[in-house]
Amino acid sequence: MKELIERIKKDGVNLGGGILKVDSFINHEVDAMLMEACGRELAKRFRPVNPTKVLTAEISGIAPALMTAKFLEIPVVFARKSKPVTMPNQVYLTLAPSHTRGIMNDLIVSPECLQPGERVLIIDDFLASGATIFGLERLAQAAGTELVGIGALIEKRFEEGRKKLENLNVPVESLACIISMNDGKIIFDE
Amino acid sequence: MKELIERIKKDGVNLGGGILKVDSFINHEVDAMLMEACGRELAKRFRPVNPTKVLTAEISGIAPALMTAKFLEIPVVFARKSKPVTMPNQVYLTLAPSHTRGIMNDLIVSPECLQPGERVLIIDDFLASGATIFGLERLAQAAGTELVGIGALIEKRFEEGRKKLENLNVPVESLACIISMNDGKIIFDE
Repeated sequence: MKELIERIKKDGVNLGGGILKVDSFINHEVDAMLMEACGRELAKRFRPVNPTKVLTAEISGIAPALMTAKFLEIPVVFARKSKPVTMPNQVYLTLAPSHTRGIMNDLIVSPECLQPGERVLIIDDFLASGATIFGLERLAQAAGTELVGIGALIEKRFEEGRKKLENLNVPVESLACIISMNDGKIIFDE
Repeated sequence: MKELIERIKKDGVNLGGGILKVDSFINHEVDAMLMEACGRELAKRFRPVNPTKVLTAEISGIAPALMTAKFLEIPVVFARKSKPVTMPNQVYLTLAPSHTRGIMNDLIVSPECLQPGERVLIIDDFLASGATIFGLERLAQAAGTELVGIGALIEKRFEEGRKKLENLNVPVESLACIISMNDGKIIFDE
């Protein structure tokens, strides 16, 4: 998606070690109009697989997932990293490593929000190693739902998450695909 | 806002102790279309004060703040509860008690995202004791910005946050105002 790629070229910062700083428009400050455009595009790509629910992980997944859900006119569930008092005691919980923090995060979904038979579309900000997305996929599976697609704003293809996700046999889409971040550069697959 | 009040009447659960469970449409599973309608209404109410940036706190503030920002066509910043590696070492940090967890949360904003002279609109899911909103107000003040308004989806007027916020001399708006949760009921100011 040209608009997102141009914005990464303009405001994204390669911090080294494969870390892309996009917190001036995606991760901390969010460009609401750009996010809406991304949601519109992701919704367009996944409408053919008829999702009934979008699933994401707090925190940075919420904005793109919400906008995608809005265009698909379906609800979005965000997996929590800690269990609020309002959640039932019996939950689906899995662990996923945090890419930028070097720790393991809980990913928790209430059974009230994911019902057997639902068609789940996973949306996140990044597709890198795929660890968070695999965590969400395990939750979707535990809840007896059917995974129908995986979408991300930004893919780091050099981390090979996509390759591992191929076994899931669902469409995987990203709006900006980075093939290399070597030598301080950001090279896109355009 | 009638649509939100009706939804709380239908799907909100009074858990006792002043805790309202809304995680089937706001806090965990999010009704994206309802959230868009809430954002449209909040944007309409605050357009006259000309905000240049929406400020909220992760996690549950992100959805209403993003939708409000979209209609105002301005960016949104969400204060983080922990500092990602992509954030500079020098940040604005304050502490705010978590209503439903009984702990203190960090609220962190990068100086890159809040610049002196900006007109800040604070949006959150709940206005209860006002503790999170006061935390955001301290961050806005530390950054040299001007606070121009405070909006929430749901107000618990019996917790008196609004009364304390009056000293800030900015408009305070909520879309659903609850005046009592005694005896398992949810009584609105309609």
